[in-house]
Amino acid sequence: MSQPILRRTFAEALGSCLLLATVVGSGIMGAKLSGGNVAVALLGNTIPTGAILVVLILTLGAVSGAHMNPLVSLAACLRKEMNWSELAPYALAQLCGAVLGVFAAHLMFDLPVLQVSTHVRTGSGQWIAEAVATFGLIVTILGCVTHARQAVPYAVGLYITAAYWFTASTSFANPAVTIARSFTDTFSGIAPSGIVAFILAQLAGLLMGLLAAQALGYHPQKT
Amino acid sequence: MSQPILRRTFAEALGSCLLLATVVGSGIMGAKLSGGNVAVALLGNTIPTGAILVVLILTLGAVSGAHMNPLVSLAACLRKEMNWSELAPYALAQLCGAVLGVFAAHLMFDLPVLQVSTHVRTGSGQWIAEAVATFGLIVTILGCVTHARQAVPYAVGLYITAAYWFTASTSFANPAVTIARSFTDTFSGIAPSGIVAFILAQLAGLLMGLLAAQALGYHPQKT
Amino acid sequence: MSQPILRRTFAEALGSCLLLATVVGSGIMGAKLSGGNVAVALLGNTIPTGAILVVLILTLGAVSGAHMNPLVSLAACLRKEMNWSELAPYALAQLCGAVLGVFAAHLMFDLPVLQVSTHVRTGSGQWIAEAVATFGLIVTILGCVTHARQAVPYAVGLYITAAYWFTASTSFANPAVTIARSFTDTFSGIAPSGIVAFILAQLAGLLMGLLAAQALGYHPQKT
Amino acid sequence: MSQPILRRTFAEALGSCLLLATVVGSGIMGAKLSGGNVAVALLGNTIPTGAILVVLILTLGAVSGAHMNPLVSLAACLRKEMNWSELAPYALAQLCGAVLGVFAAHLMFDLPVLQVSTHVRTGSGQWIAEAVATFGLIVTILGCVTHARQAVPYAVGLYITAAYWFTASTSFANPAVTIARSFTDTFSGIAPSGIVAFILAQLAGLLMGLLAAQALGYHPQKT
Repeated sequence: MSQPILRRTFAEALGSCLLLATVVGSGIMGAKLSGGNVAVALLGNTIPTGAILVVLILTLGAVSGAHMNPLVSLAACLRKEMNWSELAPYALAQLCGAVLGVFAAHLMFDLPVLQVSTHVRTGSGQWIAEAVATFGLIVTILGCVTHARQAVPYAVGLYITAAYWFTASTSFANPAVTIARSFTDTFSGIAPSGIVAFILAQLAGLLMGLLAAQALGYHPQKT
Repeated sequence: MSQPILRRTFAEALGSCLLLATVVGSGIMGAKLSGGNVAVALLGNTIPTGAILVVLILTLGAVSGAHMNPLVSLAACLRKEMNWSELAPYALAQLCGAVLGVFAAHLMFDLPVLQVSTHVRTGSGQWIAEAVATFGLIVTILGCVTHARQAVPYAVGLYITAAYWFTASTSFANPAVTIARSFTDTFSGIAPSGIVAFILAQLAGLLMGLLAAQALGYHPQKT
Repeated sequence: MSQPILRRTFAEALGSCLLLATVVGSGIMGAKLSGGNVAVALLGNTIPTGAILVVLILTLGAVSGAHMNPLVSLAACLRKEMNWSELAPYALAQLCGAVLGVFAAHLMFDLPVLQVSTHVRTGSGQWIAEAVATFGLIVTILGCVTHARQAVPYAVGLYITAAYWFTASTSFANPAVTIARSFTDTFSGIAPSGIVAFILAQLAGLLMGLLAAQALGYHPQKT
Repeated sequence: MSQPILRRTFAEALGSCLLLATVVGSGIMGAKLSGGNVAVALLGNTIPTGAILVVLILTLGAVSGAHMNPLVSLAACLRKEMNWSELAPYALAQLCGAVLGVFAAHLMFDLPVLQVSTHVRTGSGQWIAEAVATFGLIVTILGCVTHARQAVPYAVGLYITAAYWFTASTSFANPAVTIARSFTDTFSGIAPSGIVAFILAQLAGLLMGLLAAQALGYHPQKT
């Protein structure tokens, strides 16, 4: 990729910021307006999240790859599509951007900027869900990068649209998102005590996804 | 198709597994959260199912065709687009993957893995619905393969999105899916007593679909 | 277009049949499941209708143009993109297919096949709505055929998705659909007394749409 | 762009008219039918608005650029993609079209044509939201015009779909839309007292968006 690293990390931070502003903001909006019908609130959280993912990957993909997820950057390094030296800057930009996005959502909805979630998410069902969600995300990305590159933005947006509903955890599938969502005590939050297990489950899903991609012949792409 | 048969059957099993995890998982999520409004639950079941179909066909289509449906594989054999010797492995992979996907949904939602549905689905309205649903699916696939190949993933996802609502049976249109859904006693289940009639109706729909495709000039494609 | 007229009229009848089965079927499903929340029922009617339009135009467009609407066929004749001698067969096929689609929906939902709507739709607001809806549909089709031909299926599906909500009449915009919907006494029906005024309003919308297309430089296309 | 200015301003007026008819009309429909569940009403407002934006940009983009937003036209002038002499005609056409669209919605729903909104929208959260919404819209448009031109209609429609939910203001992000929406005392209205602050916030968002586009290397495009 020919873009300078500073521009690329800016793109990752910006994308992660808008992604989290959407996840957290639409969660607040949905919960506020749905009159207690959680399924309606989740629809109001799902549709915007899927939509903004398509937008961000279309808009930022040509700049930085629009990973917005340390596991996707890690996968790119493992597949030699990205230099290892770029992993830390990418992950840091993603995490900082994501946390800023949570703050932005709080500001927009007139809520205290600094919050800590009290929404406990734990248990084997949730962990299996995170592994499955991450597995599916990795297979989707690697498969479409190999065989349907132009469709990657749509595939990722639609995958997360589905995964919000078919996984018991509503599919975090992203360590930066997981950490950032511990900073909001609203609809989409996760209590800090649940973070480590979620990230371990996501790593397990990544590993399985890479093995499946190997078996499916999704070989690394020159970029 | 140049991919080895083992890889192709793996793709079929994987796709069917994720498809059923989505159908059953989002059904559980929708029913749990919708506060008794079945239309909202069905929206929460429909949107993820349509979305994941687009994703799976984009991701796995180049590997195995992403049939995830024994009737689609059968149609490919009848049209000489696939060897008859591959039909049984495809169908077996689809069925095993589908059942595993149901188990995965149960695991994610902390439910007993092994269940048998008690949701009776029977009667002439349901059977006509299954025939119509399968008919429409086959015409859609063969028409788009012939005239709009790049749009096949979107067409199938959108077709099922519509068919969940316009058919009284919510459109199974797939024997592997039908059998697998008898293994869940949740929103999307079907009691085993209803399976045979559903599959016969689907076969009738396949036959009508093939005749319509002939009349419409959707000739077999070399692949 | 090189396809024989019999095949083309079959495609028009088939498309109109599946379109109406979707409009009426999803209306029945939505009204039955939504527990009296009409907005949820209308969502369950809108999303499938928009989806099936994309599917049908992708699947049948290369065969017959997938008009499924006498006014679209009339516009094609006025613009010399279709022979006048083909208008009557097209319109007849559309109307017969549409009525059969209504019957199919009734059969699938175990309702009496033959019904007459008692849902009165009348008044200047409704008529203005029908003119606006048809105007927008015609401009959309002619604009996309001229400048974004591959996007026509998506544009039409999304246009009707919007028009179901922004017009007070929920946007019939189609004489064949209007007549066919008088044959169902369910969510999407229209009492026969309202048909003539609706069709006149649609014709007015067509005329305005053709003038706007002229002003916008959407010139007839050779096909 | 080779189209005459009269045709281009007609396209801007027409697009703005249909956009506002959709925003206001679907807001009325959603509020009327949703039985007090505001989240369902907002879904019924969001989905049509996102859909019609895709349609209008597909249909009118090749004629006038389909800005339908004075800030987008201003950005085009600042980036030397449009002549400054065309800014006033564009903005005037957009504003007149938008107001006519509000009137059309009122006519269709049998409401008084002339209304003034009493829906007060004010406060720092709302203003930050408008700045963020406009910032994201500008980055999306400039990024996609640079790197994914064919996807612009879909990106804009999906961006607004997301922004309706993740911003506390439901994302006006457009001075012509803001002014026009003060002319309706329905779901989507804004009391005139709130207009100036909204537009100032939108201008701040535009400025930030242009800076971000510069940093991301979204250079002006010859058209």
